[in-house]
Amino acid sequence: MWDVAEELSAMLVFAEHRYYGKSLPFGNNSFKDAKHLNFLTSEQALVDFVELIKHLKRTIPGAENQPVIAIGGSYGGMLAAWLRMKYPHIVVGALAASAPIWQFEDLVPCGMFMKIVTADFKKSGPNCSESIRKSWDAINRLAGSGSGLLWLTEAFHLCSPLTSEDVEHLKEWIAETWVNLAMVNYPYECNFLQPLPAWPIKEVCQYFKEPDTSESQLVENVFQALNLYYNYTGQTKCLNISETTTSNLGTLGWGYQACTEMVMPFCTNGIEDMFEPQSWDFKKFSNECYKQWGVRPRPSWIGTVYGGKHISSHTNIVFSNGNLDPWSGGGVTKNISDTLVAIFIKDAAHHLDLRANHAQDPESVLQARLWEVSYMKQWIREFHRAARRQR
Amino acid sequence: MWDVAEELSAMLVFAEHRYYGKSLPFGNNSFKDAKHLNFLTSEQALVDFVELIKHLKRTIPGAENQPVIAIGGSYGGMLAAWLRMKYPHIVVGALAASAPIWQFEDLVPCGMFMKIVTADFKKSGPNCSESIRKSWDAINRLAGSGSGLLWLTEAFHLCSPLTSEDVEHLKEWIAETWVNLAMVNYPYECNFLQPLPAWPIKEVCQYFKEPDTSESQLVENVFQALNLYYNYTGQTKCLNISETTTSNLGTLGWGYQACTEMVMPFCTNGIEDMFEPQSWDFKKFSNECYKQWGVRPRPSWIGTVYGGKHISSHTNIVFSNGNLDPWSGGGVTKNISDTLVAIFIKDAAHHLDLRANHAQDPESVLQARLWEVSYMKQWIREFHRAARRQR
Repeated sequence: MWDVAEELSAMLVFAEHRYYGKSLPFGNNSFKDAKHLNFLTSEQALVDFVELIKHLKRTIPGAENQPVIAIGGSYGGMLAAWLRMKYPHIVVGALAASAPIWQFEDLVPCGMFMKIVTADFKKSGPNCSESIRKSWDAINRLAGSGSGLLWLTEAFHLCSPLTSEDVEHLKEWIAETWVNLAMVNYPYECNFLQPLPAWPIKEVCQYFKEPDTSESQLVENVFQALNLYYNYTGQTKCLNISETTTSNLGTLGWGYQACTEMVMPFCTNGIEDMFEPQSWDFKKFSNECYKQWGVRPRPSWIGTVYGGKHISSHTNIVFSNGNLDPWSGGGVTKNISDTLVAIFIKDAAHHLDLRANHAQDPESVLQARLWEVSYMKQWIREFHRAARRQR
Repeated sequence: MWDVAEELSAMLVFAEHRYYGKSLPFGNNSFKDAKHLNFLTSEQALVDFVELIKHLKRTIPGAENQPVIAIGGSYGGMLAAWLRMKYPHIVVGALAASAPIWQFEDLVPCGMFMKIVTADFKKSGPNCSESIRKSWDAINRLAGSGSGLLWLTEAFHLCSPLTSEDVEHLKEWIAETWVNLAMVNYPYECNFLQPLPAWPIKEVCQYFKEPDTSESQLVENVFQALNLYYNYTGQTKCLNISETTTSNLGTLGWGYQACTEMVMPFCTNGIEDMFEPQSWDFKKFSNECYKQWGVRPRPSWIGTVYGGKHISSHTNIVFSNGNLDPWSGGGVTKNISDTLVAIFIKDAAHHLDLRANHAQDPESVLQARLWEVSYMKQWIREFHRAARRQR
């Protein structure tokens, strides 16, 4: 966005979503209970953006008759797409990068996501995904005894001693680490979820060349991989299984949204993916939501409100996805119409296209950015043409 | 709708709007206070319809893969249009009859409405609108004394004695009666707001041929006109200035909606219309809303949410309006695009086109209904064609 703002004579505005960052409607009480959280919905967030845009147009000299384009990545990409769908009079178009608008209900198979994660590891080094697939059993076996738990605590350099109740959580934390690595498998050193080297999965796969080694060696290797993710800077003293990212991405707010509107079914089978088999259990999920927030999720709400796969009557949205990004499984990766277009980017992880140009960027993402800008220019031209006709 | 349902193999569903009729979310407490009324919004009503349609498709055999068309008149017409705008995946098109979607902010001049009312009276009999314009002063003069108030009470056959505090309200009630007559100026005897003869304004204008008669005679004539509206059946014993319609149109719910979202500016100048001059006073309106409901209206909310005049990116909406209907002033009376079309109907009052065919219907409304059906057939064809392509 910074790279092209000047070329488009554009003002960049970063709108903070309600209940995230400093935008807390009830201050410290915002997450207190369901009553205070009641205003945290994607629909309300969209109208916030509409009001913000109207306000900026009213108050910034020269802004009034200018077109606005919504741009976002991930959940922000979904919001960008939905903003154009619901308020086409406010934004002339949207760039929805890595926006999994179909990661709901049964719009895509629940196993797609972890399958893509697995594929990333599979192609980043020989035996890599196979080694990880075998590691779960090794952990399970070792976690079966008190001495094994102690050994695991030390092997993983955990900050607090592992108990048998923690084992499920430990494995979830490890799995989420592999997921995060897939999301940020960028071609150059950077710091999005964690400071990481270029192509971090390739680095991690250095430790996963020998699936047929001993259980303790497999676990040691898992630690080496985790340590690369959590301790690339060498500053980390011990690993904390309740954290997977350094930056505050608003996990609390997202947790509530996942428990109300944003119900995303995920599953694994251990065959097409490198994880322990786990089916999607809505009931269990719903009970956890009720326990944590006092609310029950509405699994079909997003489809009801935003149309699911039936979005062909909308216009001017570019959906971009990277083939390395697990979220691409729930994204729009084929053109729907002339004005609802998909850009599928080879060698790209989670919304790589939204990052600044970089010397190590693959050709594919440079091309994607050019296409994206050319669509934006087209929307702007159309807007001015229509405005001239009205005069 | 009944006339064409069979031709279109259609199921007719009449959805009741929340807070109207029997659809009271908190039973008798629904209108108790702002807290209970908080869920009465057009947006919530639209999603109700979406949920209803999804429910019907799920539960009625054969309904699942059928197209749905939204049809409505007046506020219902606005809802039909907005339903298509916001949920194009749920309804393939909308017939918005006499839907004043632009009767907000300054999208149309605030005086249009009463100008059209006046025009209806002007063309329905010689000196008709002129006589009514003069009647206000006559009422004012007579209302200036205690004996005059008593005389007015008797002349208007009022149910309770008129006090000087009531005079403004009396005039508002009379003005609303003229407005209602304009809305239901149908070509045949019927009972929408009140039982009335064919072309009721023409009947009323029989009493308004002599603008230059005495003040008391003018008032007598006003009574004759009111009596025709309120006592066409001859059953009415006295006139009640707090009622203008027999049927329950949900005036309470609409009053609240007008005080929150549905802020419609109206004004008169006494020159282009036959009413006492009155400018649009938002502050006064807002204070009345606060007094009655404890809420303040948002005058630009409807434009923010539904786009005001910037709706050209939507598709498949027919806006029909009658030239006699005062609400046509806030309606879409010119084509916006190939698929957002206006049908302007000569000799038609408020959503006459939605009524059943009648021997006394003007040719214009018969033609309008044919066009409307042909648009609906086209939307249905398009839907099936797209469905076939997807298979």
